Amino acid sequence: NMPVPAAQAAPKVTKKSFKARTDYTTNPSALALLNIMHGKQSNLAVAVDVPDKKKVLELAEALGPEICMLKTHVDVIEDFDMDFVKALQDLASKYDFLIFEDRKFADIGNTVSLQYGKGVYHIADWAHITNAHPVPGNGVVAGLKQVGLPKGRGCLLVAQMSSAGALATGSYTDAAVKMAQENKDFVIGFISQKKLTDDEGLLTMTPGVKMSGGGDGLGQQYNTPESVITKNEADIIIVGRGVCEAADPAAEAAKYRVAGWEAYQSLVV
Amino acid sequence: NMPVPAAQAAPKVTKKSFKARTDYTTNPSALALLNIMHGKQSNLAVAVDVPDKKKVLELAEALGPEICMLKTHVDVIEDFDMDFVKALQDLASKYDFLIFEDRKFADIGNTVSLQYGKGVYHIADWAHITNAHPVPGNGVVAGLKQVGLPKGRGCLLVAQMSSAGALATGSYTDAAVKMAQENKDFVIGFISQKKLTDDEGLLTMTPGVKMSGGGDGLGQQYNTPESVITKNEADIIIVGRGVCEAADPAAEAAKYRVAGWEAYQSLVV
Repeated sequence: NMPVPAAQAAPKVTKKSFKARTDYTTNPSALALLNIMHGKQSNLAVAVDVPDKKKVLELAEALGPEICMLKTHVDVIEDFDMDFVKALQDLASKYDFLIFEDRKFADIGNTVSLQYGKGVYHIADWAHITNAHPVPGNGVVAGLKQVGLPKGRGCLLVAQMSSAGALATGSYTDAAVKMAQENKDFVIGFISQKKLTDDEGLLTMTPGVKMSGGGDGLGQQYNTPESVITKNEADIIIVGRGVCEAADPAAEAAKYRVAGWEAYQSLVV
Repeated sequence: NMPVPAAQAAPKVTKKSFKARTDYTTNPSALALLNIMHGKQSNLAVAVDVPDKKKVLELAEALGPEICMLKTHVDVIEDFDMDFVKALQDLASKYDFLIFEDRKFADIGNTVSLQYGKGVYHIADWAHITNAHPVPGNGVVAGLKQVGLPKGRGCLLVAQMSSAGALATGSYTDAAVKMAQENKDFVIGFISQKKLTDDEGLLTMTPGVKMSGGGDGLGQQYNTPESVITKNEADIIIVGRGVCEAADPAAEAAKYRVAGWEAYQSLVV
């Protein structure tokens, strides 16, 4: 009989600390984010998708101490104005978090440069971080970079999505990684379901996180903080309705922060 | 010697008339568009991507008689307000064209339903047609449809793009076609480089059209009206800078309308 080989234990997943990873990027927003994460012991971002600026600001005030980043969709806010932006910037300074406008730019370079810099929102003037779909090709990054890089902004590429039947898979995801690596001065990482590259200068941020798992009625599918960090090797968990629709969002955010941070700490060498 | 087979002529491309195609859709915006195209003898859409509402309205007034559809990016307009929307709606009625807000929605269903119906723009309240990237999966259509269908709106899926290195190819494009066919009450066609299905109820609209061909410095690549209609079998040509940056936009639009319409007429049976 042939000897049965001993089962090999999977190599233990390890991570460099967020502090150590500041050596691997030059982007000002990525550096600020890594330092905030280290200082606040938080790899929690919260997505506030509510159509009312007062409610967004209340949530930002309540969640500020727990989060490294607040994810906004300013284009769902009915009463948006520049006073709202100023108030949000003040809260970001007060509690030391970055603002990530989840615009998902997805047009040709000429168009996204206008959408990012102009219009009612002037996103490039206040969002430390924004994101783009790689589907238009490299021009989408070129167009955004032209506007954002001189302002010290950073961009994430949506390399995968958490929704059912998403088409960001396989060679599409690979192309997003390549696009990021070729634009590391401006692209600081990914929106994805798991770590996609060993490049320590690119951050993995994962949405669709909820302690209870499950889904919504419109295709969203949830993962838990622990599985996202330890199994999928993400850096930052993005939690939306799991925090914002809780009876006590601040207390719930604290739970997610601890869950995310402990999962991260269990991997750091 | 083996006899050399006679070269087979490629089967002549033919099209049903736009009028005849009203039998193949029930969507109110698609029906309105087909009737306008037939009545005005125009399969020309013009993209006005300027950051100034006065300039958008001047172009809409000048181009109105030539076009079946005006394509807007309201999120690049610095001085956007609801007076602008009202003025644009009045011009759409006066000259009988539809408004297509080229928002390229590309998020999960819950988010796009808010972005489409709420926010500063209330796009669903005034844009006859909008569009979406299929990348999030079917939820993006489900979320938009929930808001748009009760208002009689139509949606296009971005199945291909004209920009260099675009990732909307192969199985991605195939998935967009399937998503459209499964949502024909709301999805009225595609933004694509060529005809993708024989379904007469789905329209093909092709951007990146310029009489001179060529490109810009940010990855855009242009095709001529004739090649887009006769070779790629599109229904509607979308012209941007080729008209809007001309010395006389109205005269230039007239040339594009004639070029697009004659190309179409050469195929109609």
